[in-house]
Amino acid sequence: MAVRTPGVAYSITVRSEYPNVPGMLGKITSAIGEAGGSAQGVDVVQTSQGDMVRDFTVNTSGHDHAIKVVEAIKAVENVTVRSVSDQTFLLHVGGKIEMSSRVPVTTRDDMSKAYTPGVGRVCMAIHDDPAAVWALTGKGHTVAVVSDGSAVLGLGDIGAAASLPVMEGKALLFKEFGGVDAWPVVLDTNDTEEIISIVKSMAPGFGGINLEDISAPRCFEIEERLKAELDIPVFHDDQHGTAVVVLAGLINALKIVDKKPADLKVVVAGVGASGTACTKILQSYGVKSIIGYDRSGALDRTRDYGDNVMKQWFADNTNPDNFSGTLEEGLVGADMFLGLAGPNLVKPEQIAKMSPDAIVFALSNPDPEIWPEEVPDNVRVMATGRTDYPNQVNNSLCFPGLFRGVLDVRASEINDEMKIAAAQAIAGVIPDSHISEDFIIPSVFDKNVAKRVARGVARTASETGVARRRQRRGDEVYAAFKTQS
Amino acid sequence: MAVRTPGVAYSITVRSEYPNVPGMLGKITSAIGEAGGSAQGVDVVQTSQGDMVRDFTVNTSGHDHAIKVVEAIKAVENVTVRSVSDQTFLLHVGGKIEMSSRVPVTTRDDMSKAYTPGVGRVCMAIHDDPAAVWALTGKGHTVAVVSDGSAVLGLGDIGAAASLPVMEGKALLFKEFGGVDAWPVVLDTNDTEEIISIVKSMAPGFGGINLEDISAPRCFEIEERLKAELDIPVFHDDQHGTAVVVLAGLINALKIVDKKPADLKVVVAGVGASGTACTKILQSYGVKSIIGYDRSGALDRTRDYGDNVMKQWFADNTNPDNFSGTLEEGLVGADMFLGLAGPNLVKPEQIAKMSPDAIVFALSNPDPEIWPEEVPDNVRVMATGRTDYPNQVNNSLCFPGLFRGVLDVRASEINDEMKIAAAQAIAGVIPDSHISEDFIIPSVFDKNVAKRVARGVARTASETGVARRRQRRGDEVYAAFKTQS
Repeated sequence: MAVRTPGVAYSITVRSEYPNVPGMLGKITSAIGEAGGSAQGVDVVQTSQGDMVRDFTVNTSGHDHAIKVVEAIKAVENVTVRSVSDQTFLLHVGGKIEMSSRVPVTTRDDMSKAYTPGVGRVCMAIHDDPAAVWALTGKGHTVAVVSDGSAVLGLGDIGAAASLPVMEGKALLFKEFGGVDAWPVVLDTNDTEEIISIVKSMAPGFGGINLEDISAPRCFEIEERLKAELDIPVFHDDQHGTAVVVLAGLINALKIVDKKPADLKVVVAGVGASGTACTKILQSYGVKSIIGYDRSGALDRTRDYGDNVMKQWFADNTNPDNFSGTLEEGLVGADMFLGLAGPNLVKPEQIAKMSPDAIVFALSNPDPEIWPEEVPDNVRVMATGRTDYPNQVNNSLCFPGLFRGVLDVRASEINDEMKIAAAQAIAGVIPDSHISEDFIIPSVFDKNVAKRVARGVARTASETGVARRRQRRGDEVYAAFKTQS
Repeated sequence: MAVRTPGVAYSITVRSEYPNVPGMLGKITSAIGEAGGSAQGVDVVQTSQGDMVRDFTVNTSGHDHAIKVVEAIKAVENVTVRSVSDQTFLLHVGGKIEMSSRVPVTTRDDMSKAYTPGVGRVCMAIHDDPAAVWALTGKGHTVAVVSDGSAVLGLGDIGAAASLPVMEGKALLFKEFGGVDAWPVVLDTNDTEEIISIVKSMAPGFGGINLEDISAPRCFEIEERLKAELDIPVFHDDQHGTAVVVLAGLINALKIVDKKPADLKVVVAGVGASGTACTKILQSYGVKSIIGYDRSGALDRTRDYGDNVMKQWFADNTNPDNFSGTLEEGLVGADMFLGLAGPNLVKPEQIAKMSPDAIVFALSNPDPEIWPEEVPDNVRVMATGRTDYPNQVNNSLCFPGLFRGVLDVRASEINDEMKIAAAQAIAGVIPDSHISEDFIIPSVFDKNVAKRVARGVARTASETGVARRRQRRGDEVYAAFKTQS
């Protein structure tokens, strides 16, 4: 495997004590460099006549590498490592989100209006006119981020509590990029019916439901059932968020390689939640030849899939030539490899068998199916799921703007047209003249992304008849609540 | 019924158009005054040579009164009322709470640490050590405000969505007074088992559960079961919040009337959730003679209560003389009337039969069992549940500080000792020399209340063995997450 670049995600601070004599600092920084660490800063903690205590902040490339760096510092003669702290952990201490007030409660009059007795009339107004809940509460800008912790990042079934840092992070991004107020609800159950029942029960307080990191195949039934039974949008981000951004990336990649969707041969490794959703959205966009792979091989029409409806769907709806070869054989002449399976799944020599100007989206997180440093020269465009490489297929490009648009028009659902509108909006953020191999997907920090996605999604919701109010301008004041007299 | 004071809870703004001639303004403000409205402000909206448009903001005493004021303005010759807006509704538009970030996500490095790939390690740390969720997420400062909307204020079973303005208000007060991050979870089900199951499932993300406005008798089972089955505190505020503040008020009222708990005769009207909890806490404080009343009369040992375990509890544990008379007869010679039943339940001539220096807590909300303007002279101390009268028995005095204290020490439950500690802390905020008939309960805006309650509750949690960490100072930095090397 290629050596990965040290990054802040694995930044450590090593507190070291050593005799205050010339040359020590240089020996330590040399040791850090020789161990492959990237020294980011050196701070004096304490100094006395004889001794010096300094904090060395070092970016590393992972947990094992961090340990190696620490060992290298320890190995310098006369150096004692007092403690090692971890920047990422320190950032998460106390959690990443909080609740804030939108109205003051500093006087008795404030309280009479915001709480009892005034609030009673507001409650009755909603009781008398249920649609008023959108205007008179936070429902219209609030989304629940629901997970059971069963398929968290690439970590698997780590449980509800352990998934909370991800859900808080999601909430953070909802707010930062979409101005959407999201709150994590992690559920200590993996029972499909129970999760459906819980989300249905708590729906009145939310304007939308973002399902997150729920394992396949349960995620399909949970989403389908909730979509059918609730009047607010339900969106399993691992499926559709990924699909939207993959399509956005492909739209721009095709401009570089000058190929048409209908002519592409696409190999999808991993036919779980996101693999299925990506395949469906690629088909909607006109891709004809897609072969899905699971651990046992190509999903063709010769295998028996038992009661796995998703694999059966793949067999029935993809792989037009009923190809049954290995992944390596399937990759021969393929125009796009879409990896949604697991770390280091494909080797450079396998990818080398793809067509010229190949497109590789290796999206397993945190470790991709193949590292960008490893791909052979026939790969023209490469994308990963990582923050620290170019062309990150990052769901954050989709969900904040998507839900912003949905909430703006009080949409009752998120349909396929709205998802494609979101993909086109993301792709359209980069002007054609700026598109390059390293820049097919805009930065998540580009403020235009969420705005354009929101606008496109809201417009498409209206056009497809799922909006419950017309698109409003941000500065428009809602003033419908007047007593008629 | 006595005429109530106009207040901001029923403040309206009446936009009126009239010929711009001398004397018109005076005629309109006179009309407002004659109708009993309290003019708060007059703002010019638009003026031309011939016409004037002005906003008259008027406090009224209720919905019917507001209509009367509007009609009075309309009745002034040449005045046209263009619209009437309602200050309370305007304050609730868009809801009262939002989510905020505690950490920045403005750069790619931030995102690498707060979200992927860095967040994965934080998840695994919790997976490996479940107690780490308290430190590495918001659990340690976050409470769920859970309701099914079945017993909202005095409004009854108005449903989940209609209860949301109250739950948001509650969250607002949690933050404002206790620095606790609360999020409303309103449930569209009244099924006891389902509510228990939902709250259990979502518990991993919260440091405590505040149950709110759930009707009796379901609230008892829901709370008892959750307390038994969860390792975080569960607190039905309508029961215990009210009980704590009632006890706080009584502690100070007894100093005025110079009576002892053991000598009191107390009549409790309303034996639902809060009536039961108040009775239990009064008994814990040493009150011996309590008679409970429901709509059918005194709870004695002659009636058949079927399967109503709470009424049976009253019969078995209160009313030592097995008194069976009417409420009016029960009030003869009573030292304290505690009303938790419904508006205008008792008449002044009934209250007049109580002992000298009687204590009346008429807590039905928004309209009390008897209005303060109506009580006869034998009543020495009067309290209500309203914001706009002295001595408000306001749960906001309890829950923010209580949960602050509980979270500070990661308490596993809220026991009776902690509730009494909270009541003593609230009562103790008012120095004895400052206690008076109109000042037995401190203001909810007194910053000392939550602080003292938190301190008392945390200390008592530690003393009674339910704290999971020692009480910390606010400025103490949590720095346990260091990689040992």
